[in-house]
Amino acid sequence: MGRTADGAWAETWTPPTYTVDQHGKVVGAVNDRTPNNWGRWGELDERGTVNFITPQMVADAAALVRTGRAISCAIPLDSQGPVHPSRPGLMHFYGYTGADHVAGSVLGRRTRTQATDDYLLMPLQGSTQWDGLAHIGSGDMLYNGFWIGNVQAYDGARRCSVHQLKDRLVGRGVLLDLPGHQGVDRLRPGHGITPEQLDACAQAQGVEIRTGDILLVRTGHVPWFYALKDKSKFWAAGAPGVAMSTVEWFHAREIAALAMDNVAVEVEPFEDASGTSYPVHNRLIRDLGLTLGEIWWLEELAEACAEEDRWEFLLSAAPLNVTNASGSPLNPLAVL
Amino acid sequence: MGRTADGAWAETWTPPTYTVDQHGKVVGAVNDRTPNNWGRWGELDERGTVNFITPQMVADAAALVRTGRAISCAIPLDSQGPVHPSRPGLMHFYGYTGADHVAGSVLGRRTRTQATDDYLLMPLQGSTQWDGLAHIGSGDMLYNGFWIGNVQAYDGARRCSVHQLKDRLVGRGVLLDLPGHQGVDRLRPGHGITPEQLDACAQAQGVEIRTGDILLVRTGHVPWFYALKDKSKFWAAGAPGVAMSTVEWFHAREIAALAMDNVAVEVEPFEDASGTSYPVHNRLIRDLGLTLGEIWWLEELAEACAEEDRWEFLLSAAPLNVTNASGSPLNPLAVL
Amino acid sequence: MGRTADGAWAETWTPPTYTVDQHGKVVGAVNDRTPNNWGRWGELDERGTVNFITPQMVADAAALVRTGRAISCAIPLDSQGPVHPSRPGLMHFYGYTGADHVAGSVLGRRTRTQATDDYLLMPLQGSTQWDGLAHIGSGDMLYNGFWIGNVQAYDGARRCSVHQLKDRLVGRGVLLDLPGHQGVDRLRPGHGITPEQLDACAQAQGVEIRTGDILLVRTGHVPWFYALKDKSKFWAAGAPGVAMSTVEWFHAREIAALAMDNVAVEVEPFEDASGTSYPVHNRLIRDLGLTLGEIWWLEELAEACAEEDRWEFLLSAAPLNVTNASGSPLNPLAVL
Amino acid sequence: MGRTADGAWAETWTPPTYTVDQHGKVVGAVNDRTPNNWGRWGELDERGTVNFITPQMVADAAALVRTGRAISCAIPLDSQGPVHPSRPGLMHFYGYTGADHVAGSVLGRRTRTQATDDYLLMPLQGSTQWDGLAHIGSGDMLYNGFWIGNVQAYDGARRCSVHQLKDRLVGRGVLLDLPGHQGVDRLRPGHGITPEQLDACAQAQGVEIRTGDILLVRTGHVPWFYALKDKSKFWAAGAPGVAMSTVEWFHAREIAALAMDNVAVEVEPFEDASGTSYPVHNRLIRDLGLTLGEIWWLEELAEACAEEDRWEFLLSAAPLNVTNASGSPLNPLAVL
Repeated sequence: MGRTADGAWAETWTPPTYTVDQHGKVVGAVNDRTPNNWGRWGELDERGTVNFITPQMVADAAALVRTGRAISCAIPLDSQGPVHPSRPGLMHFYGYTGADHVAGSVLGRRTRTQATDDYLLMPLQGSTQWDGLAHIGSGDMLYNGFWIGNVQAYDGARRCSVHQLKDRLVGRGVLLDLPGHQGVDRLRPGHGITPEQLDACAQAQGVEIRTGDILLVRTGHVPWFYALKDKSKFWAAGAPGVAMSTVEWFHAREIAALAMDNVAVEVEPFEDASGTSYPVHNRLIRDLGLTLGEIWWLEELAEACAEEDRWEFLLSAAPLNVTNASGSPLNPLAVL
Repeated sequence: MGRTADGAWAETWTPPTYTVDQHGKVVGAVNDRTPNNWGRWGELDERGTVNFITPQMVADAAALVRTGRAISCAIPLDSQGPVHPSRPGLMHFYGYTGADHVAGSVLGRRTRTQATDDYLLMPLQGSTQWDGLAHIGSGDMLYNGFWIGNVQAYDGARRCSVHQLKDRLVGRGVLLDLPGHQGVDRLRPGHGITPEQLDACAQAQGVEIRTGDILLVRTGHVPWFYALKDKSKFWAAGAPGVAMSTVEWFHAREIAALAMDNVAVEVEPFEDASGTSYPVHNRLIRDLGLTLGEIWWLEELAEACAEEDRWEFLLSAAPLNVTNASGSPLNPLAVL
Repeated sequence: MGRTADGAWAETWTPPTYTVDQHGKVVGAVNDRTPNNWGRWGELDERGTVNFITPQMVADAAALVRTGRAISCAIPLDSQGPVHPSRPGLMHFYGYTGADHVAGSVLGRRTRTQATDDYLLMPLQGSTQWDGLAHIGSGDMLYNGFWIGNVQAYDGARRCSVHQLKDRLVGRGVLLDLPGHQGVDRLRPGHGITPEQLDACAQAQGVEIRTGDILLVRTGHVPWFYALKDKSKFWAAGAPGVAMSTVEWFHAREIAALAMDNVAVEVEPFEDASGTSYPVHNRLIRDLGLTLGEIWWLEELAEACAEEDRWEFLLSAAPLNVTNASGSPLNPLAVL
Repeated sequence: MGRTADGAWAETWTPPTYTVDQHGKVVGAVNDRTPNNWGRWGELDERGTVNFITPQMVADAAALVRTGRAISCAIPLDSQGPVHPSRPGLMHFYGYTGADHVAGSVLGRRTRTQATDDYLLMPLQGSTQWDGLAHIGSGDMLYNGFWIGNVQAYDGARRCSVHQLKDRLVGRGVLLDLPGHQGVDRLRPGHGITPEQLDACAQAQGVEIRTGDILLVRTGHVPWFYALKDKSKFWAAGAPGVAMSTVEWFHAREIAALAMDNVAVEVEPFEDASGTSYPVHNRLIRDLGLTLGEIWWLEELAEACAEEDRWEFLLSAAPLNVTNASGSPLNPLAVL
């Protein structure tokens, strides 16, 4: 229930020693982990690597469209998906149903139009989604040195909210189909994806990663969830995902965003001897300002890319415009 | 609490006289209201007018992109928006916050990564949204004669769900800026939009409506909500919206979808002497199978179109992939 | 997605052949299962066996109080309890927190009083609870022949709601501690509790069951849930609970309500060769009109009763006054 | 988004200067507002004035029961109640309905028992309720000097939770019917209730307030809400409620809890020239440790007390056993 001044867990509470300025930034904040993008797009930037995307790149991406085939990269948004067991699942409720009308609802006394109406309660980090830049911090700081205390119950993520990206996530999408390239149905849990594997796959597919790309990396892991009868195996197994060594690679490639068909992007068990959880998240989101897509569905897209033998496309992947949020569900559309 | 066999409200309940087949269709269903699209795309079609959109049209729409400027057409997804008073509003909850980390959460005992995590509860018909084809019926039937009893509390809209449209709502968008054309800041409540007004606006803007278009019609009504201090005035005032006479016009134009910046597309008070509520909804959704967009935000898009003097663009407007749902929020992106 | 006229599952839908009167009752409804209490307290009674309790019985129950020791029979209402896996769990959210105030919320700009405020989302059948009479039916009928179609998404249980019991569930409580009597820590899953076991326990405890009693039966099953590390074992194991043969016994004893420390009162696997699920529920709730308490916590109460060697007490066990609901959580208080 | 070291709102954030010990108490905390009960029941007490209630008092209260008439003091728990406009209202959802069964749910394929199942989402401070001791603080401290930072999004109110009172709120209830005594239908908004008024009413009713009583004070204000057509008038009008001068009176009487039929116990507009909101709450909850009941329904109870000409009774008013919560709904039962 407490912490040391430095933020380590403790039974007692000692206040931090820093102060926070009127912009919500920790005064004197320095990020000594490299590489990082703090300050790269200004001291008050809350968007990170999506800044790489220029309107020209969007126009160029639109010019990639040939067949006009549109493919959704979203899993079904319902209670059967791979929501992390630490989060309650999605609930879909009806305010009034067609069955009500068959039974004769009082609603029908007021109108001869028979409407049905529904509600959704969902973890914003529990389906095909973007993890926004307010989702992960360390040392009490989010991306660019914004104070993590800006994220409150009362009014949400007052800094680095995913709604800042509402019109920034459309552009050139590139898919790297790792299992396809490696000739396996899926990468195995614990498989750490390295820069070498990514380069080899890109080369084999004949596609180049460029500044501003939204990079999709297929692992086949989420499809395994759906195939499994006993879902507890899925959560116990760990996951294939990017290794810590990819951080510099993603930084050097200047990608705008990264999305994958696993649950947490990075390889599990985690690659950090010190016991820090989600160490790659920490580096990518907090230090690079890289927005991460999780639980995407890349099966149809991979098949289509293979059929058309092209791995680049227009990707339209706006988050919902949720005010002051740490993440957002979405339905990403790839247009070939 | 009951109904007559024909579906009218009653204190007692008498069962309907029809039966329903194994496809969920009312046996012998006939739609004698014209025009309608029942059967047009097959007896089991659940998607309606989005069927007008072909891959070639999508490719042509992508070719419209010039500047690469992307514009979101979504209002902020939060508790301050124009949710109809009959629905409880949107709630955004945090499972754990940055303020928790400042105070020293037990969550920090387990990990040095400081995460924040949030939840959203929302009416699916209460923000920038698509009304799917399961949202409206009459005579116990949805679009194409599907039985309204297919929409249940237990498993939602088993027919005509919005998830059927998950990859169908990208294509050529056309904006008709009615207040811009008429030289007013907004259309007044009660203003019924007619085919003549739509034609005149299109002609003045120099844009043609074509088969498969996603048509956006600006009224300026939702911006008025945000400008009003006393929101109750908004709900009491009625609304500008399309008149009953546009039904045939939309049908003849073969548009794929219609979206507007009011709350319920149609003019209010309703234009039906018999007291039927939402009579235009009823015709457009149930009879034409036309998916309707409501509470869109068209201010920036209208300005950009005026600046570039072009009113057509690539519109990427996929709903969320919500299983068996009557509607879905979305963040529509127009790319110019 | 359909049913036969008689209510059996089918791919097609055929309407029922009955009608429903203005009171919400199936016309001509007859219950040929015996014993049953249909009509016993009038044709329109929605409360069932709680009608056994008279004010005099409540006064007599109050006179049982000697030491004034009050004992709660509720499990903690949080996400760690034995919510049936078919239901999403309980969620407790904060609208604003103390940590927000430490971080300096904008809420503090408006007031120097520092408030915290919370929300609960819960399955009404997922914690220490009463199953109301609208919870279970068969043959399209609830208790007393009320039509099950009265229970709708739009306005809930218009008949037999648990709120009808808002002031009826206080009276004489009697605890039968079966594992205590049998000298075991808990009854094993699959153990069917019979009239003989109940009688033997009552006799050994020296307590008599009387008309209007609220009977508590301890099994030790819910405590086993909390003790188990792997909760999936709990759900796979079945449960100890009352056997079908107790139905007549409960009826003859004229108890007002029955509450137990298992999840569904009755023994699991179910005792019905025909495959009907929850057959005892069906008989007790629908036919007798007996309100059932589930997931109660009887450990401290059993200890106290053993210490004081008396097994009767004042029990105050009002449900929440939830309008038109099928069940309600509660915090039952036994006062010795 | 920030605060000064002393806790005043500011654009920047400066850490507090205190520390918190392993018990969650602010080190060196002193309450210089008098009267207060800090330390009265030990340095680690989290329950406050309910400690006044002894088992003997509970037994004595049970002995007050004569007629056995039980009266609920809860408003209907639904979306029509006086939830403060700053909170979203209560939502009652059905997971499966009787209407589903009439329409033929797939649920029916698995079982011939027809069940209905529901969910409730509610503000814990939005109906007939207890405000627990974690609900209100000032100067970063709750009752007894516990740190307000103990109340977090992640795990709720780790100190002073309402679940600490799960078996403490049964005892002697006394009703003071102020409008009845004053010969009016209800107290008017802005009417400040003083010690003199309380004394005069008690004397006229012939009832004495004693240590450990749960005191109910009727104003008639919540009934006015239900009678009003335009609910906005209710929220604009202010409220009758206890004046600041009652704090010492409640303290001297050593009551265990106070419950009223208004929304926030205290008179509105608030009686604090400095602009502090809810100043009486602040004194009663934080300084005295007095649990407050709000939005109770006292109409039937007042009538019954007048009929029987006795104003004392057994009151059974346990909160739900919500883990780590700031408040709880309840259904209080008075037994005469």
